[in-house]
Amino acid sequence: STTYRIAVIAGDGIGKEVTPVAQAVLDKVCADEAKFIYEPFDLGAERYLRDGAILPEDELERIKSMDAILLGAIGDPRIKAGILERGLLLKLRFALDQYVNLRPSKLYEGVTSPLAQPGDIDFVVVREGTEGLYCGAGGAVRRNTPAEVATEVSINTAYGVERVVRYAFDLAMKRRKHITLVHKKNVLVNAGDMWQRIVDRVGEEYPEVSHDYLHIDAATIFMVSKPSRFDVILTDNLFGDILTDEAGAVVGGVGYSASGNINASNEYPSMFEPIHGSAPDIAGQSIANPTAAVLSAAMLLRHLGFDAAAGRIDAAVEADIAQLGPTQRSTEQVGRDILARL
Amino acid sequence: STTYRIAVIAGDGIGKEVTPVAQAVLDKVCADEAKFIYEPFDLGAERYLRDGAILPEDELERIKSMDAILLGAIGDPRIKAGILERGLLLKLRFALDQYVNLRPSKLYEGVTSPLAQPGDIDFVVVREGTEGLYCGAGGAVRRNTPAEVATEVSINTAYGVERVVRYAFDLAMKRRKHITLVHKKNVLVNAGDMWQRIVDRVGEEYPEVSHDYLHIDAATIFMVSKPSRFDVILTDNLFGDILTDEAGAVVGGVGYSASGNINASNEYPSMFEPIHGSAPDIAGQSIANPTAAVLSAAMLLRHLGFDAAAGRIDAAVEADIAQLGPTQRSTEQVGRDILARL
Ligand SMILES: CC(C)[C@H](C(=O)O)[C@@H](O)C(=O)O
Ligand SMILES: CC(C)[C@H](C(=O)O)[C@@H](O)C(=O)O
Repeated sequence: STTYRIAVIAGDGIGKEVTPVAQAVLDKVCADEAKFIYEPFDLGAERYLRDGAILPEDELERIKSMDAILLGAIGDPRIKAGILERGLLLKLRFALDQYVNLRPSKLYEGVTSPLAQPGDIDFVVVREGTEGLYCGAGGAVRRNTPAEVATEVSINTAYGVERVVRYAFDLAMKRRKHITLVHKKNVLVNAGDMWQRIVDRVGEEYPEVSHDYLHIDAATIFMVSKPSRFDVILTDNLFGDILTDEAGAVVGGVGYSASGNINASNEYPSMFEPIHGSAPDIAGQSIANPTAAVLSAAMLLRHLGFDAAAGRIDAAVEADIAQLGPTQRSTEQVGRDILARL
Repeated sequence: STTYRIAVIAGDGIGKEVTPVAQAVLDKVCADEAKFIYEPFDLGAERYLRDGAILPEDELERIKSMDAILLGAIGDPRIKAGILERGLLLKLRFALDQYVNLRPSKLYEGVTSPLAQPGDIDFVVVREGTEGLYCGAGGAVRRNTPAEVATEVSINTAYGVERVVRYAFDLAMKRRKHITLVHKKNVLVNAGDMWQRIVDRVGEEYPEVSHDYLHIDAATIFMVSKPSRFDVILTDNLFGDILTDEAGAVVGGVGYSASGNINASNEYPSMFEPIHGSAPDIAGQSIANPTAAVLSAAMLLRHLGFDAAAGRIDAAVEADIAQLGPTQRSTEQVGRDILARL
């Protein structure tokens, strides 16, 4: 069996609680096929508060040499918003050129959504991960004065858009063959027009895949009123952030929402993380639901080529939710219940 | 009784069908107190297709001399996205310095929302209307080539933010005294930080008003899972656009969602419009619900100081929805039913 080196950045808050469960599941499900060597990285709020380090160059280099990254959650109320997010989480996504932020949404049997029936919701958001308003371009003049001006710049390139568009079309071919481009092209005419043109052009190479378009505001309505209309949602970095959290709420909570930050050309390792945050309000109590972290581990396996093993995790999680989903269980108990099904 | 001159821009699609209903309601409810003289402006898709005009300077000047504006909807699938939106609708909001985009959301008795009980949802979004990503700053180089780069620039000023923040605090004083600032300050650190600082500073002058903060992604979750937590939501132009459409879906459809584009210093007329669009799919069939247009007329009245009359419209609409809300009625029939209650 091949050996894989996995960087583990458990991070902050409940990230530290759910990540060990994901590792235990990885170890069990692949025992015969693969061996995972975990390299823990002490990154996040504690480290920053201790020695001021956010993501030192040599640690980033070490992470680059890994086969994949398992991430818990980043964020701490003691630290000013943006420092860890931009310095660590987004820094990783950008430095490792993880241009596909893949976020599946599914309404599981056993979860009561007020909005839909199980089976109604099964879509994937393909969110661009290395451009848009997340570039960190922008600035401020005359801070703290009545004449202050602050800007944020969204940078979008044909290079960056085309590669994620192609990824979405390839993905749609393996699914129900429908893409919905989400943007705000009636206001953001420069970026929106480029996205639409590239989707139209690449789409011609995929005659079997149909595509339509929604403004982000209309998309948030359909997400509530008719989520079954979506198969593959293709969108930019900020709109993807917003839509996937709304989608999480619609499928009964972000506790079931996994994600992959994928470098689809495999130059650098890809990173897998639950879409929930560090949840400081419930951290330390062992009550965080590790399901999203476990499903992120399944995405990691699929990325490394272990489709069957990933499928076994998905099936175990589905069965667990169907039977015990609404039960109040500790983080460890959910882990044991899922492990027992593998 | 005083005379008011109202510019009427019925616009496109169902805008043309719902606006006459709003005018009829205005006339009836204020018959003893005020006289409205309507000046129709032929602006929108038809005009643009006919003679290429979007918003000629002299018509804009004429609009500036009115007491208020009643707008239906702008947008037509025959016209490239952005042309009418930016050239007409946003042009008006910017040229008339309508810096408060006020969007109340309420779950009415008689509307079945899958997500909440009537009474649970009653909040107002105070959306900034003249800055942010809506400025039209941005551009593209090497269009249509693989080296294309497109940018969008969000411009935010202390001047523009402070005035809308003050408006929100004043509004909160008349309501449940709670403001939720929504932004994405962990990524958009320049603009987000400025918004937060100004809210904190102005908030000190309003010790009775509490305020908290949510990232836009988290706000879309609460909008679905716990909309009752909101009283006044304060946010920027783009996030306000997104959140208010989601809110519309949560209260049972944007058919009940009114809005005011308010120049709170009264240098220029304010503009009142349903938040729904021109809905080309149902236009021309007389099936559009005029309720949002009628509620927008009530907001117009309140802006002109006719609080009692505005209250009578709100009450008539509430009673209509409670009794007949779910019934399929023509646009005119809903109009007659509401008029009959006045
Ligand atoms: C923490 C934050 C920077 C991040 C984002 O906005 O991408 C998070 O919300 C997410 O969706 O992974
Ligand atoms: C038509 C469009 C430009 C407009 C906006 O984005 O403001 C609309 O969505 C709205 O919310 O009034």
